[in-house]
Amino acid sequence: MELNQRAHALVQPILAAPSEINAEVSQLACGAHVLDLGVQAGRGGLEAGRQLAEICLAGLANVDFVPSQFHGTRTSVQVRSDHPLLACLGSQYAGWQIKREKFFGMGSGPMRIKAGKEPVIQELGLKDDSPLAVGILETSQLPDDAVCEKMAADCQVSPDQLFLLAARTASIAGHVQVVARSVETCLHKLHELHFDLSTIESGYGIAPLPPIAADDVVGIGRTNDAILYGASVTLWVRESTEKLREVGEKLPSNTSSMYGEPFEKILRDAKFDFYQIDPLLFSPAEVCLVSLKDGQTTIVGERNDAVLAKSFGQG
Amino acid sequence: MELNQRAHALVQPILAAPSEINAEVSQLACGAHVLDLGVQAGRGGLEAGRQLAEICLAGLANVDFVPSQFHGTRTSVQVRSDHPLLACLGSQYAGWQIKREKFFGMGSGPMRIKAGKEPVIQELGLKDDSPLAVGILETSQLPDDAVCEKMAADCQVSPDQLFLLAARTASIAGHVQVVARSVETCLHKLHELHFDLSTIESGYGIAPLPPIAADDVVGIGRTNDAILYGASVTLWVRESTEKLREVGEKLPSNTSSMYGEPFEKILRDAKFDFYQIDPLLFSPAEVCLVSLKDGQTTIVGERNDAVLAKSFGQG
Amino acid sequence: MELNQRAHALVQPILAAPSEINAEVSQLACGAHVLDLGVQAGRGGLEAGRQLAEICLAGLANVDFVPSQFHGTRTSVQVRSDHPLLACLGSQYAGWQIKREKFFGMGSGPMRIKAGKEPVIQELGLKDDSPLAVGILETSQLPDDAVCEKMAADCQVSPDQLFLLAARTASIAGHVQVVARSVETCLHKLHELHFDLSTIESGYGIAPLPPIAADDVVGIGRTNDAILYGASVTLWVRESTEKLREVGEKLPSNTSSMYGEPFEKILRDAKFDFYQIDPLLFSPAEVCLVSLKDGQTTIVGERNDAVLAKSFGQG
Repeated sequence: MELNQRAHALVQPILAAPSEINAEVSQLACGAHVLDLGVQAGRGGLEAGRQLAEICLAGLANVDFVPSQFHGTRTSVQVRSDHPLLACLGSQYAGWQIKREKFFGMGSGPMRIKAGKEPVIQELGLKDDSPLAVGILETSQLPDDAVCEKMAADCQVSPDQLFLLAARTASIAGHVQVVARSVETCLHKLHELHFDLSTIESGYGIAPLPPIAADDVVGIGRTNDAILYGASVTLWVRESTEKLREVGEKLPSNTSSMYGEPFEKILRDAKFDFYQIDPLLFSPAEVCLVSLKDGQTTIVGERNDAVLAKSFGQG
Repeated sequence: MELNQRAHALVQPILAAPSEINAEVSQLACGAHVLDLGVQAGRGGLEAGRQLAEICLAGLANVDFVPSQFHGTRTSVQVRSDHPLLACLGSQYAGWQIKREKFFGMGSGPMRIKAGKEPVIQELGLKDDSPLAVGILETSQLPDDAVCEKMAADCQVSPDQLFLLAARTASIAGHVQVVARSVETCLHKLHELHFDLSTIESGYGIAPLPPIAADDVVGIGRTNDAILYGASVTLWVRESTEKLREVGEKLPSNTSSMYGEPFEKILRDAKFDFYQIDPLLFSPAEVCLVSLKDGQTTIVGERNDAVLAKSFGQG
Repeated sequence: MELNQRAHALVQPILAAPSEINAEVSQLACGAHVLDLGVQAGRGGLEAGRQLAEICLAGLANVDFVPSQFHGTRTSVQVRSDHPLLACLGSQYAGWQIKREKFFGMGSGPMRIKAGKEPVIQELGLKDDSPLAVGILETSQLPDDAVCEKMAADCQVSPDQLFLLAARTASIAGHVQVVARSVETCLHKLHELHFDLSTIESGYGIAPLPPIAADDVVGIGRTNDAILYGASVTLWVRESTEKLREVGEKLPSNTSSMYGEPFEKILRDAKFDFYQIDPLLFSPAEVCLVSLKDGQTTIVGERNDAVLAKSFGQG
């Protein structure tokens, strides 16, 4: 099944019973379906975030809550996939910036394949023939008709076949869905390092759920820190340990020159210009690479509880 | 959907295949359905307890088993809800004592809304128009026709529309369903402290599953200790940290003058008269309050492994 | 429902959509259905292993991934059952060696009941009237027509009613399904000690998922070590603590004279002759016995991180 259809199958129960996860569903004049899980009236929650994350992964991964091993929070978000390339880079990666006169949102989910705008989609040769498109928006505003019509056109679907799930960063669901990106962040970093992602058979990640920020910028900081300083990712890879050690040396977040400060400070120092931030910073704190060729484990990086505590307001 | 109907949807698979969870199902002469998950012939088990807990929460929460971080047991019970007020106080709170000449049981579950006897139901303005009632009984005897007919009348349903799930405290399911009350206990304590529960958006709790007691009184002791000395609850609240700190000072179990002894001893010292026990003792060991207004965390209380070990017979 | 029918109900979704878990499904000329989850073209993965384990347990247990508490791996496999005797010895135990001229595999799953070859099946008086048979093969080759026809005949089903799921040890699914045997190993050891297994009401186990070995012998070593040196099992038993202490003294793996070395070394020292290995070695590292008769806990054995590290190539 195509990824957008897989995601749509997970959207349908929400459309049928939105109050189950505190969602607010509306259909705009243009026909687009907007599911608010944490922007305005939709207050969402933990389960909304969990479902948002699984939809964002096109149903090709499992997302769960588990007890946290970091003192500053009691809950972690666990993700696992046996289709990590498609699930994470094909779908979950937030690679589509949607900017209009009065709207800004980070777009993710399988609609990105239909839009086909990003180099990563083209490089991976991804296509999707679904007659519909499903996307996730990390945004502080709900999209209006103009935004949806443009997105539908970009995705080559009629607006009534566009399904957008939105949560602001500073919401419970918004935090959960970012913290569920531990494996994705690792794959994206490996892609930046020109590693052959098709050799990655399975991925498992865990990252602490930060205290939900009341402010979007603080939220962007904390959720990124949950990955950069708190996430542990295991990848099972059909590649030799020699090659894995080589790439491992550059892989975890602590290999970046910008490592060591809470992300909010890094972002403010860069005057909110993401292009000023070292792209190689974006990686989990710790990565375990298991070679399926020789059975050895390469563990690189480590959790940084001091930065997490500072970031989470407990320093 | 009304809470009793939600709970009933979870009861139906048990009626259809009771042996899956080692339940014994019977229909009394009056028509009432009695599901024994740990009283007489029904031996129940872990999954029976998990389902019992989710039914008791009217399907508005998720209950899971996770590894324990306390040495004396290897298993903990995790609960989470994005509808904590309805799930916990509207349904799960064991606020309906059912006393008849030859019967005693603590009643919980959504039937309490239909009975409408408790102040908390009235204070929260809860109603339920379901034509049926679902309840959980913590009891060492199965209810007979007289008990069921009276309960059905109290709930304003015909006896054949009454579904009662029963487990004694000293059973696996009986222990699991009590230990799944970590978030509920926290909300109830907050209610006692006159905190506005409608500001609580989500809750997450974890508590150790004690070794199952062979005796109901020991079981009452251990399961309460699992909460009072072992539970950690996180609440996400639309309230300022200032207010949360204020209520936090009185919130965890260690703020009670009766804190420090295993609950069985407290109960025996009170000569089994619950009215002699400080109502403010009933609270989790540790509470993390996350303010959704300002993004700060307030952590109060802490786990008390020494009392847990004593309570669990490992001191 | 008979165990083979229960297992078959879990096989059907894989037949309908094999790519979900990276399975390769084929039907041999004789009609037998072969599901490759990690032998040749079927690359399987974590979820394939999880489903393989649950099918092997005839759907009478739950298998999940949880964070690991051992440093050398980040993932553990959790299993729980309220039907431990049927699930583990009736179905999951790998007691049927399938040896043909050009084929070798360890057979497990409910087909063993239909074959009825093993003393344990006869001792437990197990029968299964299903018109079909479901089995799991730990093997480095896929079975051919000759193997399947013989197995079908042994199970007294027509070959087209035989469903075999195969994974080699040195695969992700192959490792997961062995590591899910923590409770089973404990029950089998208790059976060896002539303990009455019908008194065991529920079981819960957790064991670390080793780095997947590239070689089957290393894989056999690591997955056994995950149980022998890494597993913690809790059993809830209708038996007195006195009796449980008695059996407990002989129960954990460290009561065997062969305890202390990685299993691969033990196997090589025995020149791969399993009959030279102390059968009492096969047991979890740690067992918690909860007496349902008197409510006390007996904890025996302990995790051995040093041997695990050596076994997992991290020593």
